[in-house]
Amino acid sequence: MTINIILAGPRGKMGNEAIKMIDQVPDFNLVAVIDRKNEGKFLKDVSEHTHAAVPIFVEPEECFTKVEADVFIDLTSPETGFIHTKLALEHHVRPVIGTSGFSEESVQELKAIASERKVGCIIAPNFAIGAILMMKFSQMAAKYFPDVEIIEMHHDQKVDAPSGTAVKTAEMIRKSRTEKKQGHPDEREELAGARGAEIDGMHIHSVRLPGLVAHQEVIFGGPGQLFTIKHDSLNRESFMDGIKTSIYKVMELDELVYGLENIL
Amino acid sequence: MTINIILAGPRGKMGNEAIKMIDQVPDFNLVAVIDRKNEGKFLKDVSEHTHAAVPIFVEPEECFTKVEADVFIDLTSPETGFIHTKLALEHHVRPVIGTSGFSEESVQELKAIASERKVGCIIAPNFAIGAILMMKFSQMAAKYFPDVEIIEMHHDQKVDAPSGTAVKTAEMIRKSRTEKKQGHPDEREELAGARGAEIDGMHIHSVRLPGLVAHQEVIFGGPGQLFTIKHDSLNRESFMDGIKTSIYKVMELDELVYGLENIL
Amino acid sequence: MTINIILAGPRGKMGNEAIKMIDQVPDFNLVAVIDRKNEGKFLKDVSEHTHAAVPIFVEPEECFTKVEADVFIDLTSPETGFIHTKLALEHHVRPVIGTSGFSEESVQELKAIASERKVGCIIAPNFAIGAILMMKFSQMAAKYFPDVEIIEMHHDQKVDAPSGTAVKTAEMIRKSRTEKKQGHPDEREELAGARGAEIDGMHIHSVRLPGLVAHQEVIFGGPGQLFTIKHDSLNRESFMDGIKTSIYKVMELDELVYGLENIL
Amino acid sequence: MTINIILAGPRGKMGNEAIKMIDQVPDFNLVAVIDRKNEGKFLKDVSEHTHAAVPIFVEPEECFTKVEADVFIDLTSPETGFIHTKLALEHHVRPVIGTSGFSEESVQELKAIASERKVGCIIAPNFAIGAILMMKFSQMAAKYFPDVEIIEMHHDQKVDAPSGTAVKTAEMIRKSRTEKKQGHPDEREELAGARGAEIDGMHIHSVRLPGLVAHQEVIFGGPGQLFTIKHDSLNRESFMDGIKTSIYKVMELDELVYGLENIL
Repeated sequence: MTINIILAGPRGKMGNEAIKMIDQVPDFNLVAVIDRKNEGKFLKDVSEHTHAAVPIFVEPEECFTKVEADVFIDLTSPETGFIHTKLALEHHVRPVIGTSGFSEESVQELKAIASERKVGCIIAPNFAIGAILMMKFSQMAAKYFPDVEIIEMHHDQKVDAPSGTAVKTAEMIRKSRTEKKQGHPDEREELAGARGAEIDGMHIHSVRLPGLVAHQEVIFGGPGQLFTIKHDSLNRESFMDGIKTSIYKVMELDELVYGLENIL
Repeated sequence: MTINIILAGPRGKMGNEAIKMIDQVPDFNLVAVIDRKNEGKFLKDVSEHTHAAVPIFVEPEECFTKVEADVFIDLTSPETGFIHTKLALEHHVRPVIGTSGFSEESVQELKAIASERKVGCIIAPNFAIGAILMMKFSQMAAKYFPDVEIIEMHHDQKVDAPSGTAVKTAEMIRKSRTEKKQGHPDEREELAGARGAEIDGMHIHSVRLPGLVAHQEVIFGGPGQLFTIKHDSLNRESFMDGIKTSIYKVMELDELVYGLENIL
Repeated sequence: MTINIILAGPRGKMGNEAIKMIDQVPDFNLVAVIDRKNEGKFLKDVSEHTHAAVPIFVEPEECFTKVEADVFIDLTSPETGFIHTKLALEHHVRPVIGTSGFSEESVQELKAIASERKVGCIIAPNFAIGAILMMKFSQMAAKYFPDVEIIEMHHDQKVDAPSGTAVKTAEMIRKSRTEKKQGHPDEREELAGARGAEIDGMHIHSVRLPGLVAHQEVIFGGPGQLFTIKHDSLNRESFMDGIKTSIYKVMELDELVYGLENIL
Repeated sequence: MTINIILAGPRGKMGNEAIKMIDQVPDFNLVAVIDRKNEGKFLKDVSEHTHAAVPIFVEPEECFTKVEADVFIDLTSPETGFIHTKLALEHHVRPVIGTSGFSEESVQELKAIASERKVGCIIAPNFAIGAILMMKFSQMAAKYFPDVEIIEMHHDQKVDAPSGTAVKTAEMIRKSRTEKKQGHPDEREELAGARGAEIDGMHIHSVRLPGLVAHQEVIFGGPGQLFTIKHDSLNRESFMDGIKTSIYKVMELDELVYGLENIL
């Protein structure tokens, strides 16, 4: 099986990684890129990361009309990405979108188009499969272990705490966990904050140190045992496995799926 | 809901823990125990661990005939356990069995009886829910991460390596993982054994130290990320959650299920 | 070398462990025990944990007068322990004391007696060598890594947070660390407590879960690297190594040393 | 205090990092660089990583003669580095050398010159302070915990196992540890290699996975407790702290010190 791919946003860091990944997978074939400049040139002439002689289009409409493709990958901004995705769906090219800023309304509009035209589409705010599995398995484990704490660790340039992933994990766990105020009923903090932040009785701890990248540990405790799920993310290469999996998966879909957790 | 329970093997360490657990769960009600001695006495007279005034039977047949019960828990030996389980099924009392030594043949025989009589039955060689989830989630994760190594850690009185759980985990992973020879193709051990044992290209490492109890870590690696599942087992209390879950679950079954992983 | 030992407090849990340890070390020889009852009997007659035919004394003065010994171990209360220690020093028997409740004043009084009589004496509030090394090495590492966070994890029956060991570790680190407000200068907690408790800019996080015993991790971060020191304590057996080391060490001392960290 | 620095090898990856580091430390002042090309130019003209208007010399002799400096950093090859170091010592500029390939003979020759001229000099094959502390503390801990296993984890492009650091750690531990055959005396491997490689009864396990960089854990076990020291190295930034510490330290020396462990 050869899957022909159009990519938008080829010059960013994610774009570079995506082109490298497409080059390495024998089933994948890059047929065109959409970019804001270099109209009429070939990708290999403007990028040192690839030998691919694929045409560059500045006009997305023209690209989808002239080039036959199976899948469309967008690594631009939410605004541009939305316009691209609509166009792709209308041209029956299946979108795989990693943008996290789509409004609920935009997603609904795209969902309607995808269903009507029966075109597969995947929108995933987080393409790191490990992070998705961590959240999904945590939700499953919480059915058996209502006692759980989350430790997330990031570099010390991160401003906010806790991380969005930690909060999302707690929210997913909440759906399956019997609500419970954890710890000793008379528990007391001799130093404020020692027991971390709290969501529904679950505790979240945020560590910030130079040398860390992005890590999270979900620890479940029961009588005589501990069960731990951990994800370490070192760089954006981690997203490529998720995009790759999504490209194969979107070929089998005839509607829009939001969130990688719903296709794993 | 009150679930009336008969327990065989009340005086062993597991028996003690099980009686304590039954005492603590409001839905559970111990109605009789089967033991090799103390016929006609009451449990509270022979055990310092409970106030339960439940009768002791030496004859299992008599017990199942005289006492009305929903669930039967066996914590004896494989031989005695097999006889007990057959009797329980015939009296429509749902067995929950933690014995690991049943032969394939015995299980098939019990399965047939359970199906015929439409009586629920759970046989689980390992009742630690955390261990079961570790194996199950590892199998699921291996679909996305073919690169995996297992580190199991036990006290230094353990004779065999690797542990049975590590081998079982590898076998479960094998079912979902695309076969792959891991590591660098020209990899070489400067000291024999450094890269551990190998099952289908997956590596297993066995650590033995005083101070350890029973621990296992399954580490999956992909470009730019790591995904880890870990189980720490400290004592046999960890089995009680599995027995408790099985008691509730067996009430909904009308056939025999082998392995806790098939009801979680 | 044979070291003759008198032990006070033989019937408590620590006493039992200590007697077992003394039995196992060839150099050690238990010659008498001090107890509140069983005057004139032998230890083996009142304890199922030992075959030692050593005499029991209710009067400590009588014990130290009649029995020749090298080392005295006290596992009683602070009040009784203080009286015993004074007596031991006066009879030139070197005390090894695990009591944590001695007042500063009591320690000074004992220090004076030990120096005057030139008798070795070790008082250690914590005999777990691993915990002491964790604190000591953390203090040493902080000279090179001013960025540090402490995660301490205990069972959910612990009432106070953070643990005394975590606070003591932070205080020891403070002595060698260049003071620094860690994390991003504009750091903000979206949920209160996420960043843990703070001592001098260092953060401490307290996890409480069933299945945990007593654990602490000290994580240092620097550009491109992490350095971690961890201690897991599972039971009071962990104290015996510290007592054993102290017995050998006290034989070489001619004054009082407070704190195991000062002899390791 | 201003420390004037000459650097050889400014264009490599380590050179770039070192220049960045020197720029950031207020006490440090780069006064010249030695390079194989660009004679007579200024560093800022040939490098995009710095604004430093420091002269480039192709002839080291000329550089040391014309430029007054306190410290010389060499990030070239062993052969060139040896010549540079000799010259620096002769001009009373204190060398800080990160080359790992010096022969024992070369080191002895440099040691003799440094002692004769009373010039401080530091040669360190590994500048990651965390790695050095891990080895040093492991050696200290082994005095109290003879049972120890090492787990080292690297990316799957590493060919040899175990790592040089793991072997060096075991050798340093060996010096302080009472020799002991660890594990159960009747221990047996059901699968060859499960128990890892062995040095003097200590076991070493090598994990290789994509997503890993360079990590090592040294786990000590005793009755009822575990003590663990861990180092994670993510990139060559981790060497800069070691170079920085060495620059300050070499100012206080009047002889050659080999190995960062001897100045920490």
